[in-house]
Amino acid sequence: MPDQAAQATPEPGGALAGWWVFHLFYRVGDGAERGPVELALKECESQEHQVVTATLYGHKADFAVMALGPSPEVLRGLQTRLSRCGLEAVYSYVSLTELSEYAAGLPDDIVLARLRPKLPPEDLSAFCFYPMSKRREASDNWYRLPHDARAELMRAHGAVGRRFRGRVLQLVTGSTGIDDYEWGVTLFARTHEDIKACVYEMRFDEASARYAEFGPFLVGTVGPPDEILTGLGLR
Amino acid sequence: MPDQAAQATPEPGGALAGWWVFHLFYRVGDGAERGPVELALKECESQEHQVVTATLYGHKADFAVMALGPSPEVLRGLQTRLSRCGLEAVYSYVSLTELSEYAAGLPDDIVLARLRPKLPPEDLSAFCFYPMSKRREASDNWYRLPHDARAELMRAHGAVGRRFRGRVLQLVTGSTGIDDYEWGVTLFARTHEDIKACVYEMRFDEASARYAEFGPFLVGTVGPPDEILTGLGLR
Amino acid sequence: MPDQAAQATPEPGGALAGWWVFHLFYRVGDGAERGPVELALKECESQEHQVVTATLYGHKADFAVMALGPSPEVLRGLQTRLSRCGLEAVYSYVSLTELSEYAAGLPDDIVLARLRPKLPPEDLSAFCFYPMSKRREASDNWYRLPHDARAELMRAHGAVGRRFRGRVLQLVTGSTGIDDYEWGVTLFARTHEDIKACVYEMRFDEASARYAEFGPFLVGTVGPPDEILTGLGLR
Amino acid sequence: MPDQAAQATPEPGGALAGWWVFHLFYRVGDGAERGPVELALKECESQEHQVVTATLYGHKADFAVMALGPSPEVLRGLQTRLSRCGLEAVYSYVSLTELSEYAAGLPDDIVLARLRPKLPPEDLSAFCFYPMSKRREASDNWYRLPHDARAELMRAHGAVGRRFRGRVLQLVTGSTGIDDYEWGVTLFARTHEDIKACVYEMRFDEASARYAEFGPFLVGTVGPPDEILTGLGLR
Amino acid sequence: MPDQAAQATPEPGGALAGWWVFHLFYRVGDGAERGPVELALKECESQEHQVVTATLYGHKADFAVMALGPSPEVLRGLQTRLSRCGLEAVYSYVSLTELSEYAAGLPDDIVLARLRPKLPPEDLSAFCFYPMSKRREASDNWYRLPHDARAELMRAHGAVGRRFRGRVLQLVTGSTGIDDYEWGVTLFARTHEDIKACVYEMRFDEASARYAEFGPFLVGTVGPPDEILTGLGLR
Repeated sequence: MPDQAAQATPEPGGALAGWWVFHLFYRVGDGAERGPVELALKECESQEHQVVTATLYGHKADFAVMALGPSPEVLRGLQTRLSRCGLEAVYSYVSLTELSEYAAGLPDDIVLARLRPKLPPEDLSAFCFYPMSKRREASDNWYRLPHDARAELMRAHGAVGRRFRGRVLQLVTGSTGIDDYEWGVTLFARTHEDIKACVYEMRFDEASARYAEFGPFLVGTVGPPDEILTGLGLR
Repeated sequence: MPDQAAQATPEPGGALAGWWVFHLFYRVGDGAERGPVELALKECESQEHQVVTATLYGHKADFAVMALGPSPEVLRGLQTRLSRCGLEAVYSYVSLTELSEYAAGLPDDIVLARLRPKLPPEDLSAFCFYPMSKRREASDNWYRLPHDARAELMRAHGAVGRRFRGRVLQLVTGSTGIDDYEWGVTLFARTHEDIKACVYEMRFDEASARYAEFGPFLVGTVGPPDEILTGLGLR
Repeated sequence: MPDQAAQATPEPGGALAGWWVFHLFYRVGDGAERGPVELALKECESQEHQVVTATLYGHKADFAVMALGPSPEVLRGLQTRLSRCGLEAVYSYVSLTELSEYAAGLPDDIVLARLRPKLPPEDLSAFCFYPMSKRREASDNWYRLPHDARAELMRAHGAVGRRFRGRVLQLVTGSTGIDDYEWGVTLFARTHEDIKACVYEMRFDEASARYAEFGPFLVGTVGPPDEILTGLGLR
Repeated sequence: MPDQAAQATPEPGGALAGWWVFHLFYRVGDGAERGPVELALKECESQEHQVVTATLYGHKADFAVMALGPSPEVLRGLQTRLSRCGLEAVYSYVSLTELSEYAAGLPDDIVLARLRPKLPPEDLSAFCFYPMSKRREASDNWYRLPHDARAELMRAHGAVGRRFRGRVLQLVTGSTGIDDYEWGVTLFARTHEDIKACVYEMRFDEASARYAEFGPFLVGTVGPPDEILTGLGLR
Repeated sequence: MPDQAAQATPEPGGALAGWWVFHLFYRVGDGAERGPVELALKECESQEHQVVTATLYGHKADFAVMALGPSPEVLRGLQTRLSRCGLEAVYSYVSLTELSEYAAGLPDDIVLARLRPKLPPEDLSAFCFYPMSKRREASDNWYRLPHDARAELMRAHGAVGRRFRGRVLQLVTGSTGIDDYEWGVTLFARTHEDIKACVYEMRFDEASARYAEFGPFLVGTVGPPDEILTGLGLR
């Protein structure tokens, strides 16, 4: 695909197949009990899917379940069971792991880490999720940039992220045609200070400053379900 | 109608008559029972209307009913019966099948497939619905383009869609003056990866990149009502 | 008032007095009964006010009551009684019939039809309501156009509407300072196809394409209260 | 302060101190009783604060209480008591009476009427409330205009209002840093036609056409609490 | 980092670590009791965290709890306990104390006052909270300004604030990547008039006029929990 003409309509590279990722955000009602919730989570894990749980901060939600794997039926089954446990789903995000069109030529281990991530990462318990889209405004329209310009912006954007290597792990999953925004971003970090610094620095990057639209931010701390649910007052 | 002058106010072609399409999105409450829901769906089908059902992913809704046919009374009757079964309608979209003004000269079988579609298509169980409008912003105002320019943009847009032929079936139904957006888009696909790739590629197309505004995306999998409702925990 | 200078702040013509119009949109709960609702509607009619009822399509609301006449007390009285019948008001619009500032020199029968309309019109049972405002954006600011330019745009806009004469009756009622948008638009038509075609064609008109902002669209079919309420499952 | 340079950041004049104004908008539930509501209103009045009550039109709210005076504790006390009477506060607006920075040199009686208004005005029972802010958009940024330009726009704006003298009384109260918009506007008028005509005419004024952003409009009729509450069906 | 080239992508200074700040806004239900609420607040204080309580004005919320300290677990524990006391969290904001990138070279006592503030300040009981972000619009994009330009705008902005020294204390806490806006602003003042005047004057400052986007404003008065809760009608 020739990209020399910035005026021409650009042709996107294809995004490869991946796993399903359900981010489920719950408010914990008075009637909720710990046992059935833990059972539902274990059942999902026993079907070869991963489950990450987190306590959330603030009124938006109390409890986050991030579940991922090849089968949307298994993940939807988890969602159905949790809703029968007195948990109220107040927000969610559905996306798929993907290799972005700018990721050509990555080594196999990175490809695998993106398409089949092993979560949660060790020692990175600070948790943040937000969805985002690229802008399509008159003077700042991402989708009218040629592929090379977008690739260069994403490369610079990635460079900011790499400064936080080892401190912040970012998983970007695709949701164009799947949920209301175009991507879901999940951050795991050593501390929330690292999350804050990383997102703040990235905001100055042209890919974010000119072209990003952000949805709600949901923030908390990863932990084992029994500890989290006990902490939230469930018997 | 002369379209040579881009400055002149363009005159739209007429859109032909069609069937009614009700997209109904439900949250399943504790009191809901499978029997009455299935009965309501069958009653609608027995009145010569089609019913497609799908499990949905994420918190927005659990259960989708897409019903279509000539009579809004039959479809509203279905809606009324379902609301009496413990299903809570949390979103909906009302539209009509149509031939777009850019569809002149189509062969009869395509015309019929658009105005009287037979749903769901075989072997395409991945489901996606979203409403959309065309922009009317200062520098990106679809409704100020002459007919020929719009037709050319739609032709290019259709070419992206045709690359997914056999993998993604797109049904665009009209809702200007009927519901809050101007069109409803229903996608049936082999896999959700195909939906994601198709919508992503289309976003780079000028008709989308400059002129489209999207509403919420509701995504799931088509299946028979009894399987879906059992899967959602209804007795 | 001299309107030759497009730069000068334009002076609006005065809009004449009219009747009150309450558009009330209800969701029908389990406890609602037909008898008290019908009684409330009749009581309002017995006080020399008109009442139009419609079944609505989709989840936004089930039942529309459009009531009009000289007394807001009578109309508010109807609203109060209906809310005591198990109907939940989920949306409404309050406006006044008016002669627009562009309507100078109309024949008396048209003036009367606008200020004291007789509703519903015969044989036009397809129903649509939406509120709208004129834009005040930097490059598309209706309220900075001189009166003559606005009058010309409204004349062209009316010409589109006149092509639907006999098939679509449009009632535009004023709500600047009364409700959240500046006008309420009620359409009565032979078919919803006519509503769809009419609103679609008008969208290409400069008055709409550049200057209109639309609120929600509520669509259904006019009918007698007992039929509608029985159809909605009320005993 | 020298205002000759339009490019310079303008310096606002100071707004003088005033009374608190609570606009409280209630939906009337089934359990509400007239007695306790009237008692709460009287208690507030007995503490040297004014209370204006109004029936509202449409689904947004049923009952408006506009209470004003020097003590936010007294006004918050009224709010607390009313919420204990089965009234549900669905909207509110908190502001302070003020002399605008453009009001220098006003005669004492006008200053007093603005800072310590005596409400409701006689014979002006039509009621309207809406909040508003001044725009800060790229080409229409009120806060980047020099003081003199703003003063001139406000002077022209006031001239439109003065044409309605005796028919419409406008009270503009300040809420920058106090509530979500920058001002609350309360209109008392002979008729709602006068409110509609006044707000419509003002919209063509440059101060509104280019620089105003409006919140929701709440409209009804002022009356004594017992009549209003009886009319709303309270025993 | 050389900042001489305004076109270059600017590099933000790093923001230093701080304390967690939870702003929790509650509606007080009928079942709420004073004892358990006070106990929960005391428990949090006994774990070396600060708690500020305020009565709020208007329908948005009744009761504000601003709690801060090093441990998000302690603060989330407070949130969980309060939700078990019949208080409904209707809004919240989560942020961290920080030294802004423009704060280099501040004396130690100021640094400490920002990172480990001692709240509430004496004699400043008027309370206001609002979240805000910096704009990223085509012509007003804060994140595309070089560091020096931003620093100069913030310096001028701070000068307005300093005119209110002793009358208004402003605490700006960072929430990029933590909550939906980029900063939370908490004001403590002698009077609400001072809050109103300060926020109004700042709005003319270029940093606000061109570059600020504001969220909701929550306003009330700081006081001891027992007084506040009694005033709100809790037994």
